Amino acid sequence: MQQLLNQIFLPTFGSLPENSHDAQVFAVTAGQWAFTTDSYVINPLFFPGGDIGSLAVHGTVNDLAMAGAMPQYLSVGFILEEGLPMETLWQVVQSMQRAAVQCGVKILTGDTKVVDRGKGDGIFINTSGIGVINHDQIIHPRQVQPGDRLIVSGDLGRHGMAIMAVREGLEFETTIESDSAPVHREVAELLKAKIPIHCLRDLTRGGLASAVNEIAQSTGVTINLEETLIPVREDVQAACELLGFDPLYVANEGRFLAIAPPESVDPILQILRTYHPQATAIGEVTGTSEQKLGLVSLQSRIGAPRLLDLLSGEQLPRIC
Amino acid sequence: MQQLLNQIFLPTFGSLPENSHDAQVFAVTAGQWAFTTDSYVINPLFFPGGDIGSLAVHGTVNDLAMAGAMPQYLSVGFILEEGLPMETLWQVVQSMQRAAVQCGVKILTGDTKVVDRGKGDGIFINTSGIGVINHDQIIHPRQVQPGDRLIVSGDLGRHGMAIMAVREGLEFETTIESDSAPVHREVAELLKAKIPIHCLRDLTRGGLASAVNEIAQSTGVTINLEETLIPVREDVQAACELLGFDPLYVANEGRFLAIAPPESVDPILQILRTYHPQATAIGEVTGTSEQKLGLVSLQSRIGAPRLLDLLSGEQLPRIC
Repeated sequence: MQQLLNQIFLPTFGSLPENSHDAQVFAVTAGQWAFTTDSYVINPLFFPGGDIGSLAVHGTVNDLAMAGAMPQYLSVGFILEEGLPMETLWQVVQSMQRAAVQCGVKILTGDTKVVDRGKGDGIFINTSGIGVINHDQIIHPRQVQPGDRLIVSGDLGRHGMAIMAVREGLEFETTIESDSAPVHREVAELLKAKIPIHCLRDLTRGGLASAVNEIAQSTGVTINLEETLIPVREDVQAACELLGFDPLYVANEGRFLAIAPPESVDPILQILRTYHPQATAIGEVTGTSEQKLGLVSLQSRIGAPRLLDLLSGEQLPRIC
Repeated sequence: MQQLLNQIFLPTFGSLPENSHDAQVFAVTAGQWAFTTDSYVINPLFFPGGDIGSLAVHGTVNDLAMAGAMPQYLSVGFILEEGLPMETLWQVVQSMQRAAVQCGVKILTGDTKVVDRGKGDGIFINTSGIGVINHDQIIHPRQVQPGDRLIVSGDLGRHGMAIMAVREGLEFETTIESDSAPVHREVAELLKAKIPIHCLRDLTRGGLASAVNEIAQSTGVTINLEETLIPVREDVQAACELLGFDPLYVANEGRFLAIAPPESVDPILQILRTYHPQATAIGEVTGTSEQKLGLVSLQSRIGAPRLLDLLSGEQLPRIC
């Protein structure tokens, strides 16, 4: 097993993820850095638009970007189920390395564990990441203020519906591809342009609705969203209706929310639309209630605004 | 589930490992840092002398120490199997936090994923760690030279045999407790005293024999060990004989090997023996063969020296 792993990791990552040395050394300049971790247990391992390997790179790169940090180094920890075809692992590892090169990050250190058959599920991957903060802005939910606007970086719901379509064995006229992608370059452009930004949040598990609710609840502000402005592709909307999902709660893996003062909206959209033409301002922070309830209301297509809740259960397990 | 997790993580770690923000920011001084990752899939989760939580802290702290780095921050990624009793998770999380405080490291960021019943095994934990290098020595296998001596930091084989005794349901006169413990303080003392050291290696999976073989093979040196000098407790030796294990291949989780020039042996032992009286010089690097074979020979109690091989299979699966 170890020899097989070495045959896979050595030519791909350029060094053995383990055993060659217990920890890897890197040089830093003084300042602020960011640290994050995420485990990936997605089922299925391969899906239209990506696989667990590229997802594990993009997801952690994006978590760093959301703290305003430029990703530098990743670690990778594999938990493999005994009996996993080596061809599958090879494909995943190749995909990780391609994604890392594409994102400009270096996979610095790694680890592999094997568990008995039936005690895992093919491949689980943990990636942790460190990145450097090269600007003076404080990007954090606590910076969010009444009057701020909310901007989404592109159309929503594709990752979740791509996974569900595979799981349910559904075929649509067009294949829905996951939006899995790194977003740190957009963020770097926004920061380099010194556009004031208060908060960034990727729209992963639980989608836009969960992200906005978490920000509202942790800060006590009230947020109003305009449903008609939220970009969802027609095929994604149709798949959601067929399967009984609300696209606002569906996971994305290459989309984020920027919360910024009104004067930042135009310059933010100008940059984001060079990446995704669907980037849109979708709502605003209307105030802080005396009770600091942290409510999110949705002005829907018809009728009065409704409250957009946090889901009590997890809508889509093992979506990432 | 998320609410239950919050009830466990919030009071323990002082912040939510996830959702509060995507990545956590920390300040660094310029210089050399180290980065490492390890996943823990040990079975059983609780064992004499420790549990998966403390092990996941000690193991990653020790990996950093082996690169000569002082551990600063950890990330923690949980993969939980559906149906895991919350009481079990609570105990593990408490144990992690105690271990982190004891080691002087801060758990900075985290993530939790839940997989369906039968697709995991209770709890898997990934910890990644970053540490700072505060000295000028280069601690790396490539520094190893002919004439260097090998020193083990204490008696060997307790972790592996503690786990095997539980798994096999064996009871001995005394309970063998795992040696799971942080070793970064010993290492910090050695480095602060400016004692020349060429390489440090923790003696985890595969034990002393695997660690020494890996160093010999990666550098091409020949290493001779004196079997009679290698410290193994009588009860551990007896358990090994009963179960058919060679203590030199059994995992440790609080023991390491230092490789250093001859004049360093006495000052190293003086410091290490304040932690474990069994710290001992057990062998030396005798040279580099023309063929750079990287052999390890063991002078046993009786007869001629024998070659100490790398095991072809993994002797003890899920030992960490």
